[in-house]
Amino acid sequence: MNDAAPAVYGVGTSLFGKQPGVPGPELGWQATLEALDDAGLTPSCIEAVFAGSVFGDPGVIQRTLQGIGIVEVPIITIENACASGTSAFHEAAYAVESGRYENVLAFGIEQMTDSFDSAIQPFRSDAEGRQGFAMPALYAMAAARYQYEFCITPTQLALVSVKNHEHGRENPRAQYRRELTVEQVLASRMIADPLTLLQCCSIADGAAAAVLGPDRRGKRDVRVRSSALRSGDRWDYRSTKVWGWDIVHNTASEAYERAGIGPEDIDLLEVHDAFTIGEIVTTEALGLCQHGEGGRLIESGHTWLGRQQPVNPSGGLLSRGHALGATGLAQIAEIVWQLRGDAGGRQVENARIGLVETMGGGTAGIDGNGCVVAILETETR
Amino acid sequence: MNDAAPAVYGVGTSLFGKQPGVPGPELGWQATLEALDDAGLTPSCIEAVFAGSVFGDPGVIQRTLQGIGIVEVPIITIENACASGTSAFHEAAYAVESGRYENVLAFGIEQMTDSFDSAIQPFRSDAEGRQGFAMPALYAMAAARYQYEFCITPTQLALVSVKNHEHGRENPRAQYRRELTVEQVLASRMIADPLTLLQCCSIADGAAAAVLGPDRRGKRDVRVRSSALRSGDRWDYRSTKVWGWDIVHNTASEAYERAGIGPEDIDLLEVHDAFTIGEIVTTEALGLCQHGEGGRLIESGHTWLGRQQPVNPSGGLLSRGHALGATGLAQIAEIVWQLRGDAGGRQVENARIGLVETMGGGTAGIDGNGCVVAILETETR
Repeated sequence: MNDAAPAVYGVGTSLFGKQPGVPGPELGWQATLEALDDAGLTPSCIEAVFAGSVFGDPGVIQRTLQGIGIVEVPIITIENACASGTSAFHEAAYAVESGRYENVLAFGIEQMTDSFDSAIQPFRSDAEGRQGFAMPALYAMAAARYQYEFCITPTQLALVSVKNHEHGRENPRAQYRRELTVEQVLASRMIADPLTLLQCCSIADGAAAAVLGPDRRGKRDVRVRSSALRSGDRWDYRSTKVWGWDIVHNTASEAYERAGIGPEDIDLLEVHDAFTIGEIVTTEALGLCQHGEGGRLIESGHTWLGRQQPVNPSGGLLSRGHALGATGLAQIAEIVWQLRGDAGGRQVENARIGLVETMGGGTAGIDGNGCVVAILETETR
Repeated sequence: MNDAAPAVYGVGTSLFGKQPGVPGPELGWQATLEALDDAGLTPSCIEAVFAGSVFGDPGVIQRTLQGIGIVEVPIITIENACASGTSAFHEAAYAVESGRYENVLAFGIEQMTDSFDSAIQPFRSDAEGRQGFAMPALYAMAAARYQYEFCITPTQLALVSVKNHEHGRENPRAQYRRELTVEQVLASRMIADPLTLLQCCSIADGAAAAVLGPDRRGKRDVRVRSSALRSGDRWDYRSTKVWGWDIVHNTASEAYERAGIGPEDIDLLEVHDAFTIGEIVTTEALGLCQHGEGGRLIESGHTWLGRQQPVNPSGGLLSRGHALGATGLAQIAEIVWQLRGDAGGRQVENARIGLVETMGGGTAGIDGNGCVVAILETETR
């Protein structure tokens, strides 16, 4: 990744939140036009598009982009569950790295309120989900197993939500910007024991975009140091690791190896906190601490804004909201803003290397449909 | 595309047809295991997967491939309407060409009977479709305009269906294998004037796969000489071309240019005959004849099996059936079988260069969501 090292020229997002009155294309235009403007490019400069969408109708990406004049170019729309947006980013970065295209748009959009009244409903083909073993139950299973193996306390779990909501208060585009206490989190309605409502992210409508091209070493370019994408392996309940650990760990190992760095080199992270236990397991799988130490890590303050390695300075999915196809690119946007020093009240000091992790889907028998880990850096601060 | 010219090592498909009793993964296993066996590879050899699916539930590709041990590799699931399978093929070919991976699986699956009782229903966001301007109406509009501009006769339109059903009689995996007459085609129920039922392809359940890798110049390798993918431009009813002509023409021009050949060099073609008018317009846009000459071309016999440039020797979508995400790879499989001389009773004599074209989606305002044109060749006959 040296000669044609890919860089992010610009990013943009819509507001995240329940916006049933806003047409999907309009959310997409907000994100895309902001990213293009940030990159100093016009729509006609874009040579190819890699897009993420899970529940969008066929053609929603084309109809959206055509509205701002991005036409006749290759458009690859990717479904990879919650990791769809980061999968689009991963493919866009490779397209630049391999010299296939310059000026590539990575784009994600999701109108969740169009598809669901409240939580995501299990799909026809999801036999487990239709028996009640939907995503919250799957993460709750991991949490219960984790409690059994490592004695994480309810307070430690709740602190993930408290931290991310505190971070999100400084993010003007986040869905929920309110202070929460451990007591409030634990007193909220039980969704799937031990996960209460405020430990589960909310569905959201939103769009996010990034414009990539070869690194020009410009002041505002943020370099993609490495990116890795994997699907999951079969998961066996007799595994010594809780569900979801392996796929994140293996994907991160590949990303670290390609980047030639380790977890200790990372200044800040945006990770997939769809549920509080998700962030706990992910911080361990990413190597911020040993397996089983995640509860103590959040309690120690290590991952809070202003401390050693802030995790989810944007507020994460728990505060920003989860617009599936857009989420990964909103994570990328946050890291880019942070690395440029543009993150306002939630700015991480001396941010030089940031990591994005998104894990999508999975069943009791698969430890994730897909996971992407990308490492971004700036050299000009 | 010289050093790491991509080649197809093996192909496979399930039966195509209404198979509501067959689980989607089983269709996928049939196609994938046949393709792997044909390539002489085991599932663990596959380094990456590019898949096509339009209506499949999130994760359907992962659940299917995990069942035969394709795990932990990158899986990119692409939605590009009817061109989803060929888009997956296009990305797989580039992954080989760029040296990103060897042994790549391109895979497509669709269980249409799971999603629709009969025809495809317009989507929520498809305001035109919900007013009745669904795909058959869009193609009928093109046909009516074509009739006005070029005076194509009902018989010429019907002959496309007659030809493709005649071809499909020799395809043991096709959905409809019966002889049809022009009279039967024209007497069938009117769907959208001038398109009668037997001028519209049927929905089908099916899966198809291809294994690609660097060209080994082996006897059974079929080389990907070029591949092009584009989205559509805004279409204006005042255009001098009928709807759909431009996107196919522009994509084909790119594929021809990259291959360094022209339409006169093509021995056989699999094209997107979702509706009879589609094949008429496509044969023109691909350069087999001038715009306006497509009716005379089908009537002349030029595109029939045994003649100069057979189009849709497999029976096309009209006979084989249309399983959206799988269709493009079924087209690829047919070309590979033909170029190897393995096509049995529908074998095209001296087939050396074959072309696949798939056009997906579109609205009255966009002349297609996406189009792929791939040119395959063999040198060892």
